[in-house]
Amino acid sequence: MDKTIGIFGGGQLGRMMAQAALPLNIQCTFFEASQDCPSAALGQVFSTKAENGLQDFIASADVFSLEFENTPLIDVDVLTKQKDLHPPRQALAIAQHRLSEKALFDELAIPVAPYKAVTSLDELKAAVEQLGLPIVLKTSRGGYDGKGQFVLRTADQIDQAWAELGPAGELIAESFVTFSREVSIIAVRGIDGDVKTWPLAENHHHNGILSHSIVPAPNSTDLQPVAQDYITRLLNHLNYVGVLTLELFVTEKGLYANEMAPRVHNSGHWSIEGAICSQFENHIRAVAGLPLGSTEVVRPTVMVNIIGQYPKSEDVLALKGAHMHLYNKTEREGRKIGHITLMPNDSAELATLCRQLAKILPNPLALSEDMSI
Amino acid sequence: MDKTIGIFGGGQLGRMMAQAALPLNIQCTFFEASQDCPSAALGQVFSTKAENGLQDFIASADVFSLEFENTPLIDVDVLTKQKDLHPPRQALAIAQHRLSEKALFDELAIPVAPYKAVTSLDELKAAVEQLGLPIVLKTSRGGYDGKGQFVLRTADQIDQAWAELGPAGELIAESFVTFSREVSIIAVRGIDGDVKTWPLAENHHHNGILSHSIVPAPNSTDLQPVAQDYITRLLNHLNYVGVLTLELFVTEKGLYANEMAPRVHNSGHWSIEGAICSQFENHIRAVAGLPLGSTEVVRPTVMVNIIGQYPKSEDVLALKGAHMHLYNKTEREGRKIGHITLMPNDSAELATLCRQLAKILPNPLALSEDMSI
Repeated sequence: MDKTIGIFGGGQLGRMMAQAALPLNIQCTFFEASQDCPSAALGQVFSTKAENGLQDFIASADVFSLEFENTPLIDVDVLTKQKDLHPPRQALAIAQHRLSEKALFDELAIPVAPYKAVTSLDELKAAVEQLGLPIVLKTSRGGYDGKGQFVLRTADQIDQAWAELGPAGELIAESFVTFSREVSIIAVRGIDGDVKTWPLAENHHHNGILSHSIVPAPNSTDLQPVAQDYITRLLNHLNYVGVLTLELFVTEKGLYANEMAPRVHNSGHWSIEGAICSQFENHIRAVAGLPLGSTEVVRPTVMVNIIGQYPKSEDVLALKGAHMHLYNKTEREGRKIGHITLMPNDSAELATLCRQLAKILPNPLALSEDMSI
Repeated sequence: MDKTIGIFGGGQLGRMMAQAALPLNIQCTFFEASQDCPSAALGQVFSTKAENGLQDFIASADVFSLEFENTPLIDVDVLTKQKDLHPPRQALAIAQHRLSEKALFDELAIPVAPYKAVTSLDELKAAVEQLGLPIVLKTSRGGYDGKGQFVLRTADQIDQAWAELGPAGELIAESFVTFSREVSIIAVRGIDGDVKTWPLAENHHHNGILSHSIVPAPNSTDLQPVAQDYITRLLNHLNYVGVLTLELFVTEKGLYANEMAPRVHNSGHWSIEGAICSQFENHIRAVAGLPLGSTEVVRPTVMVNIIGQYPKSEDVLALKGAHMHLYNKTEREGRKIGHITLMPNDSAELATLCRQLAKILPNPLALSEDMSI
């Protein structure tokens, strides 16, 4: 092997990173609690529970990255005294703290919904008064896939919201933005500062979990340069190396940043088949100090998550142009355990595929025949 | 894992099969002499040298395939008493014996160059008389990448040719076909008899080793249906399951079959990036009894072998749209140790890429700026 990359986390993102690394003779190791995690088939797993786990993990690789945005900063600080981490610690620290994240967006003139920091019931009441209702109350730390959030629609929910989220520490109250859809922009920055961006993905959720993404996002020609500009500001400001994701709301006033993820992202899984170079390969290239690959789209692509329960492989693979990626995870309600990539030639073919897929998936979520590409 | 496929051989073909299998939750094991073979990063290797190696290998998987066309039939016979092999034993036996192969081509009315079996010096002299010169004398068994062949141009070479190849056993004398170029057709047949074919590859050699393939082969619209017809005859006749390759010469009289390979093929490596579904994934799907994926091309692709010596990864990956696949093999003259995939937008871009690549590769072989896509 030419180089070894140590990855904090060992889930499906690490698994797909390691799959992309292998043809480049780059090996991955992982730092993860469970030995039978999705990444385990592709490299050695160092246990977060073992006494010398962190030191052994640090010794196992030349350079480091992460697939888990809640990687403890305390571990990162031990690492960065000895070896390099891409993306930088600062990006991780900011992404782990919604208030810092919003402050960064403000600083870089990236529009966000009006927000207020909330650390007491009184501050929550004041925020409701200033921002108006509805608002979304979120914990500043932690939370993903819709967890750690409370949508406040009426003033009589204030006490309940505080009771639920108040104990979680610092909170953030955000104006409820009326948006027509959610999109995400994914970009990669190399060690030399080269930035490449994939086209916007249009993301559809169900119960707070990503259901499917359509790429390029329909009718996004005007949005693409704006989103690209925003993410490039972030990448350059943070002197970032690797893949960064920025989730955005499409509103009447333009794009509003929702949050960033300092890692490859579920809404970028389409790129394995749909782009010349995938988010996983480009992340690996960036971390390894190699030149970035083309982010050009080879064909419009729809990525559909497999959530909770596996469909029959033979049913999915019988769909025209379908690819399936299983993560070797056990079934559990609401858990992302795989994804399907569709590469239809046109919107009519997409509608047919969605109709077929809805019959096959145990959990077809928000799939609709009305999608267009 | 859903299923395990045992593969005879553990080279780069097995490595790329296993890479394609992993997202489908299919694990591979390998039967190979060397523990540090290219496939070893992706699955357990059972040694051909170990006392119970074959039995342990047979116990390790549910269904079997191969990446090495000289897999001993004696091993296959032990296996097939217990478990299934795809492709079928008969295809392997025929591919290992040029005279049987030619006889099959004859039987299925697939044109071949005139040939004669040769088992003595007298028969060689008679063959030269009947076929005329030049002829190519080949061993009926063994030989690859131009080894085990003698091109007889003048009658005074007969003794030398016999001295060189006579001891190898049965020989075959073939008329020297005047061809404008060599192409190959790759197809896959599922367990249900479904057949899918990739577009013809135009193959360029240097010192008998494949240098690069261009797909789709330029000016091949008329040739494609003919080649597809030939390979479909072979697949159906053999009740074949998996990927089969047929090498063909383009002559003034049409396509002439050269030889078949009962496996994925170097001239199909382009399909990892260039087709909706690669030869590796479709082979795995077929062997696992899953539906086949689309063999449609997403973009014209050129595959260039890395032979003998590695280029610098950073130089190759800096080429626009380039992918690199390294096989984790040590450098050795004439050895295939990796390949590069280029996906240019047009012939002008291809010329630029070839010029750049020729400067980068330690061994640029027959790369030419005059290639077109």
